[in-house]
Amino acid sequence: MTRLKPFLSDNAASVHPRVWEAMQAADAPDQPYDGDALSRALDERFSALFARECAALWVASGTAANCLALGTLCAPHGGVVCHREAHIEVDEGGAPGFFLHGAKLMLAEGEGAMLRPEAIAALIDPIRKDVHQVQPHAIAITQASEYGRTYRPDELAALGAFARARGLGLHMDGARFANAAAFLATSAEDAARAAAGPVDSLAFGFIKNGAMGAEAVVLFDPARADEVRYRRKRAGHLQCKGRYLAAQILAMLEGDLWLANAAHANAAAREVASGCGARLLHPVEANEVFVRLSPAEREALRAAGFAFYDWGAEAARFVTSWNTRGEDAEALGKAIAAL
Amino acid sequence: MTRLKPFLSDNAASVHPRVWEAMQAADAPDQPYDGDALSRALDERFSALFARECAALWVASGTAANCLALGTLCAPHGGVVCHREAHIEVDEGGAPGFFLHGAKLMLAEGEGAMLRPEAIAALIDPIRKDVHQVQPHAIAITQASEYGRTYRPDELAALGAFARARGLGLHMDGARFANAAAFLATSAEDAARAAAGPVDSLAFGFIKNGAMGAEAVVLFDPARADEVRYRRKRAGHLQCKGRYLAAQILAMLEGDLWLANAAHANAAAREVASGCGARLLHPVEANEVFVRLSPAEREALRAAGFAFYDWGAEAARFVTSWNTRGEDAEALGKAIAAL
Amino acid sequence: MTRLKPFLSDNAASVHPRVWEAMQAADAPDQPYDGDALSRALDERFSALFARECAALWVASGTAANCLALGTLCAPHGGVVCHREAHIEVDEGGAPGFFLHGAKLMLAEGEGAMLRPEAIAALIDPIRKDVHQVQPHAIAITQASEYGRTYRPDELAALGAFARARGLGLHMDGARFANAAAFLATSAEDAARAAAGPVDSLAFGFIKNGAMGAEAVVLFDPARADEVRYRRKRAGHLQCKGRYLAAQILAMLEGDLWLANAAHANAAAREVASGCGARLLHPVEANEVFVRLSPAEREALRAAGFAFYDWGAEAARFVTSWNTRGEDAEALGKAIAAL
Amino acid sequence: MTRLKPFLSDNAASVHPRVWEAMQAADAPDQPYDGDALSRALDERFSALFARECAALWVASGTAANCLALGTLCAPHGGVVCHREAHIEVDEGGAPGFFLHGAKLMLAEGEGAMLRPEAIAALIDPIRKDVHQVQPHAIAITQASEYGRTYRPDELAALGAFARARGLGLHMDGARFANAAAFLATSAEDAARAAAGPVDSLAFGFIKNGAMGAEAVVLFDPARADEVRYRRKRAGHLQCKGRYLAAQILAMLEGDLWLANAAHANAAAREVASGCGARLLHPVEANEVFVRLSPAEREALRAAGFAFYDWGAEAARFVTSWNTRGEDAEALGKAIAAL
Repeated sequence: MTRLKPFLSDNAASVHPRVWEAMQAADAPDQPYDGDALSRALDERFSALFARECAALWVASGTAANCLALGTLCAPHGGVVCHREAHIEVDEGGAPGFFLHGAKLMLAEGEGAMLRPEAIAALIDPIRKDVHQVQPHAIAITQASEYGRTYRPDELAALGAFARARGLGLHMDGARFANAAAFLATSAEDAARAAAGPVDSLAFGFIKNGAMGAEAVVLFDPARADEVRYRRKRAGHLQCKGRYLAAQILAMLEGDLWLANAAHANAAAREVASGCGARLLHPVEANEVFVRLSPAEREALRAAGFAFYDWGAEAARFVTSWNTRGEDAEALGKAIAAL
Repeated sequence: MTRLKPFLSDNAASVHPRVWEAMQAADAPDQPYDGDALSRALDERFSALFARECAALWVASGTAANCLALGTLCAPHGGVVCHREAHIEVDEGGAPGFFLHGAKLMLAEGEGAMLRPEAIAALIDPIRKDVHQVQPHAIAITQASEYGRTYRPDELAALGAFARARGLGLHMDGARFANAAAFLATSAEDAARAAAGPVDSLAFGFIKNGAMGAEAVVLFDPARADEVRYRRKRAGHLQCKGRYLAAQILAMLEGDLWLANAAHANAAAREVASGCGARLLHPVEANEVFVRLSPAEREALRAAGFAFYDWGAEAARFVTSWNTRGEDAEALGKAIAAL
Repeated sequence: MTRLKPFLSDNAASVHPRVWEAMQAADAPDQPYDGDALSRALDERFSALFARECAALWVASGTAANCLALGTLCAPHGGVVCHREAHIEVDEGGAPGFFLHGAKLMLAEGEGAMLRPEAIAALIDPIRKDVHQVQPHAIAITQASEYGRTYRPDELAALGAFARARGLGLHMDGARFANAAAFLATSAEDAARAAAGPVDSLAFGFIKNGAMGAEAVVLFDPARADEVRYRRKRAGHLQCKGRYLAAQILAMLEGDLWLANAAHANAAAREVASGCGARLLHPVEANEVFVRLSPAEREALRAAGFAFYDWGAEAARFVTSWNTRGEDAEALGKAIAAL
Repeated sequence: MTRLKPFLSDNAASVHPRVWEAMQAADAPDQPYDGDALSRALDERFSALFARECAALWVASGTAANCLALGTLCAPHGGVVCHREAHIEVDEGGAPGFFLHGAKLMLAEGEGAMLRPEAIAALIDPIRKDVHQVQPHAIAITQASEYGRTYRPDELAALGAFARARGLGLHMDGARFANAAAFLATSAEDAARAAAGPVDSLAFGFIKNGAMGAEAVVLFDPARADEVRYRRKRAGHLQCKGRYLAAQILAMLEGDLWLANAAHANAAAREVASGCGARLLHPVEANEVFVRLSPAEREALRAAGFAFYDWGAEAARFVTSWNTRGEDAEALGKAIAAL
């Protein structure tokens, strides 16, 4: 029987051995919640990574990370501008409505699920400045985007300037932040800064990149951290044994494991893409490959042992991971090329 | 230097080796979220344990477990009756207000942080049946209680009958459910049933008893499970790699580890209590010991290496755990006796 | 100086003399809130009007009427399908997000701001039936629509059948329900029934039609009325002196004043429309007239004393009212025809 | 047959003739919502009344007025300290939980339903400054209190100083603010200032004092008004024909009608109290009289034509109004004295 070659998603991959080790090293009792030494080290560790002062809190899911951060940028009567296909709009089960007490997601357009200042302006400029219409309070972008596209530093700078000019907060959903950083990286030192740009907050994802159940909410205005801490508890997201979450995050940052894992996944995605030619629906700038494939072609690939999701009727999505085997990526690229 | 003898809390204890093993055995990829084989086994496993049909979902904290269950028993305009010192009122950072969209906690009195039908009636009978006053929709009790007291089966039956007669849901916060079950157990077979009685839902705690970050929401009306699933996602509590949470829970149930761990902690608590005599503030029916101790006496115990929390100005709380050393418990009991 | 000829909106018109009389007749003290004789008469009065059992509650705004009714049809984790240009989406300041605790408005397309089953199906059929996506719980339509279009009985029947088949509630925003009823009416007896069709709830508007500050929430499943009563109080909408609101509504129903007022407004709108020819953007089926007019043409009309709102860059909206003067409508129609 | 002598409540009394006149004078169309000339006059009118800059918005109920104001003083994760018998806790159907998105009411003790700094400190000082416990954000007091007691200027100053020292907002529920002001008044000029003291916001009640359905939210930090405006719309409390509400309020302020009406009611209450002697449960400092009366005594009074509510098993509450007849008050006082 053919071994299954998995390209379904990166969200259920195994946990990296160094993360396991760090969790086990954290087994000795310490203070509960986030009073332990590991949790208390996060602020400093992330401040060093981004070379600017920030506060960082662990949380067990990207949904919670995004919503807790957005909750400090948008009042219940306000709105958050995001892309029509943003994860927070499409795939978080209405979590923003819950965490933000009914604030509204305001849907902008853009190629590759990416937002540009012009598209945001086109959405919000027609809003009358009166109480009958919900006013925008914040913008949320996804890095890398839902189609595996990466915002470049100059694009982030433009969004930051636009947000400031309009008095809007700017949040980044970084479920695959590492993949974007690895794509942009000229050096490990500047990767995080380049990928985050001037955002006010970042949901820094680790789970899709080798961790078990820990993401970081990074707040570049540390004064907002206290509010997030109260909201995290109130949302049932303050775990007793927080040291196991902090340990995961610190292990991922240690020795730039986060970048290495993401670089591996990105390379595998490029390998897959190398066989796709004009079938590619989006440039591959992270670890996702969207490919035009007929039902018969998809069936043939599945018969050959490749596992992946359909993307509508005439395409498929392939996601690589920190532990995708090079031979599998190569085989997939060749199999698509041979169709 | 004296080794620290820890009696602060059970909520930051190490993870049991069999839980670690089960988590590692779950490392091979499976379906994300709760689509994996382990998560899908929970309903059946808990139905067997309670000998009645139920649905069970993992969640990473007791706060979330309580609030998700209560959300199906109480509408936003209703109220949940709980003890004035209940954890959901005192120590969950207002989480019920968030998850229940502003529903009200209605505070009843009772010795040992336990509720009796009479006390609930005394609270709710004077409420006018008009829209100006919040009407009760549910009752929440804690097993074992916040003072380490355990409801007996006949007490639970009386509460269940009262709740049904008044048309109220009945929820149990079981952060230390295992300790109550171990206290009541005549056999492993009936322990869970005896400790749960006729409740509609149970937040079954494992974290304080040897797990890392997994509790179970148990719904004895499985028809409510679907609503809880949507609410869990909406609250950011549906983790991608749910198999690691399910694995923890299944490991705790396997071979009745949950009962064995709790029995160990209870025995250690009894050992501590054996030295306390009239200093005991509450009968010891689980793994917490509340002891009248002057500041000087507490200082003396701390000087001898015992770690614990003050309980007001003239008392202390000692909590034992699944891995409390017998010698430490014995030493503490003797040290108190010798004061 | 030219007298101003007002076609801005019907929402700030004077109060009808018979409404004034009824309010003053209610000045003698009676029970507070909705315990007075007038408020208690509403259920029966509306049940007679619709020839089916219903419950009816007064409330001071259409926004509150819509949101209170929708709150019983859609859980916080669900969604309400409405038209992209529906008033609840565009002009209620996010009120549905507040009253429904973060439930989502799901935006469908349709000519004339009207929904057809096919358009709703096109929106909701692609929604995966899993917890990651918000599931629809209800549909909200507007009668007459935001473009002054009226659903015919067979269209309502089709929507009702669709809603039932999909297990969705069906709500009608009837801010201009009277205008739709007057448009459809073959007789005063069947006007209300014809215009409401098989909806589950109706926000029956009176304010735009001659009342001061009273709309009715009509619930065709009276069992839901109790929940609305609690929610109305909780939203601060239970006024002490409710008899003045009930008096307004009863006066509007008395002798079919509601229909006569709406028929007057509709006739005035038709008069305006009679001069518009191909300039008309929408068929005139209520009391709103949308007309293609250049900036220069609008300026000319305003110079002639007509007051109205622009509708985008190349059109205008004219709204008639229960007290629009026939001569003004005639003059406007002629003025447009003469452009 | 004996004419009924009404002392049930002031909340369903008739509307004052000058209020009726003002409403009718407002019948000519003006801008909708709060764009009309009357609504736009409120800020200036109240700023003059309180001799300090403030913003004022109309709203149709005291519940909404309180909750809209509190919503700007307390975040969803915070708490509002109020008296255990405060109207917002006991009689508003959980409205604060709704408007404040689940924030908590924190219940303090105090004679006469009045709060003192010491009582508030006793409640909040034991709260641990950590995320597990809800932190107070604001204080709400009621002037006159739920037992008809009036805070003196020095008491208000002390509360203001305490609130500032603790970083808490201070809100006043002024459902019977006029009665307190009339009680304190040395002159019409300083009555409002004396009764409000240094509060941050005031729900200034007119409905119980001769208006029909209009209260004012007064914000002494006008910068908060914009948020309240958005929240008012979002709560469905922005009525189309706001000019009728503004007209009521302006009529009540014109010529100090609000003070004259309240002074009349207070005098009637004193007249009733003059016959009560040691039966009085609370000093009479506004328009409510709480009197110890056995069931038989209450029956005798009712047989004599007096209408009023029981207050528990052994007392009654008598409320006077702007239009209570002097002869009725005198008769009641004498009847009680004769028991």
